[in-house]
Amino acid sequence: MMSKTEVLEIAGNVTSWLIEAGDKLRPGVNHISKVDTKSSRNDLVTNEDVSIEKLLDGHIRQTYPDAQIMGEENKAERPQNLHGLVFFVDPIDGTLNFVRKHDCFASMIGVYYDGEPVFGGILDVMNKDLYWGGSLLGVYRNDVKLDAVADCPLADGLIGASWRQLFTNRFNLGTIGYHASGVRILGSAGLEFVQLLNGRHVGYVSTLNPWDFAAGSILAEALGFETGSVSGYRLSLLRPADYVVMTPNAMKTFRKLAYA
Amino acid sequence: MMSKTEVLEIAGNVTSWLIEAGDKLRPGVNHISKVDTKSSRNDLVTNEDVSIEKLLDGHIRQTYPDAQIMGEENKAERPQNLHGLVFFVDPIDGTLNFVRKHDCFASMIGVYYDGEPVFGGILDVMNKDLYWGGSLLGVYRNDVKLDAVADCPLADGLIGASWRQLFTNRFNLGTIGYHASGVRILGSAGLEFVQLLNGRHVGYVSTLNPWDFAAGSILAEALGFETGSVSGYRLSLLRPADYVVMTPNAMKTFRKLAYA
Repeated sequence: MMSKTEVLEIAGNVTSWLIEAGDKLRPGVNHISKVDTKSSRNDLVTNEDVSIEKLLDGHIRQTYPDAQIMGEENKAERPQNLHGLVFFVDPIDGTLNFVRKHDCFASMIGVYYDGEPVFGGILDVMNKDLYWGGSLLGVYRNDVKLDAVADCPLADGLIGASWRQLFTNRFNLGTIGYHASGVRILGSAGLEFVQLLNGRHVGYVSTLNPWDFAAGSILAEALGFETGSVSGYRLSLLRPADYVVMTPNAMKTFRKLAYA
Repeated sequence: MMSKTEVLEIAGNVTSWLIEAGDKLRPGVNHISKVDTKSSRNDLVTNEDVSIEKLLDGHIRQTYPDAQIMGEENKAERPQNLHGLVFFVDPIDGTLNFVRKHDCFASMIGVYYDGEPVFGGILDVMNKDLYWGGSLLGVYRNDVKLDAVADCPLADGLIGASWRQLFTNRFNLGTIGYHASGVRILGSAGLEFVQLLNGRHVGYVSTLNPWDFAAGSILAEALGFETGSVSGYRLSLLRPADYVVMTPNAMKTFRKLAYA
């Protein structure tokens, strides 16, 4: 395990790197020079995704030369195990929003040691709000410490989801939406975690890669949310997951409804 | 028709009333004293909806004693015709967000004369951004004049919708979402118009009341968006509508797909 001193050092480094990434991203939103597609027409990657990931990777390699890095864009060097310090890097979470809206995207770094959560950082780039911390340090929005979550039932809260999964009723999301106050769709996992950390949504369900949920899980768990896979298997940080995060109370109802 | 001087006077009045409403709403988001349900469990009205509508109605009656007022909460006095000056008032658009999220809601006033658009104002309350104007004055975000919309095709843009309509595939919204870049769901018509005015979404489809679309239609049309009913009948300002607003280019594709 890491000492509090080591975690504080990681906190100082990761937050400064995310702030640097945001400062580079904001001026670029109106002149994105290169957009490529990945798996489909709307799975986008830009020159900015690649260059911000390189920036963050460079800082990590220089400061923690023995650490492994799991990055969204650098497929070649993805770790095969979770030994030691592992940094999960999502340079632009919500690239479609970045390209189409020039807003509503996040930069994220989640840090684990031997698979155990250490530190999470999510920058809501255009709002310049940095969410950071973990179970050892507590969770902060900039310099404001956030309260533990009220254990709100599903019926009294909004949930986040992805629109295709709602439309196809994956995980019974339609029924779950009717049991909740409703469904909101933002198009960025990072900003969905921001809703949770601020007590605005009670849950979020989506199929995600590890870099999408690594940072947010650490922050959400530290405030009392439960995380898991939809079907109940143990979450892995090495592969995509059908991912759910909810208040404990909402999670109970979700578990009854997801395969009902 | 109204003269530019008369419209400027309305602009000055309506914007100052919306700013006053916002200043009253923001401090109250964390202690909403009374929440009632209307048509269903998640159709909410609060003490704040009622008192802000009274505040705005009072200003309108004092300043324009001959005007008619179509307000969300005051059912008793809704106008039966569109003669003369008519003010459409939505004190809190997105009441569910107001109650559950303490964010993502708007206050709106749309002004028509003999059924013709005069002036629209939308306050994004928590962000303190006021969108105002019309065809005669142009459209502004606070003191920044907004550009006419780029005529983006559906395939290159995001659309807004309501989650239940997406889930039930009303208006063929699933297919339309797959033709677009995707669907976002915000839970406030006012904030959907804000996305359009900022060039972040190319369209919005929902079943709305006149006070939901009165202000936004004026602003969106002034920037080059098309508005209409989904099924092609003429929009009325006296009853609910299956409402669509899109760039002209996206609207062409929408018309082909909505009942395909």
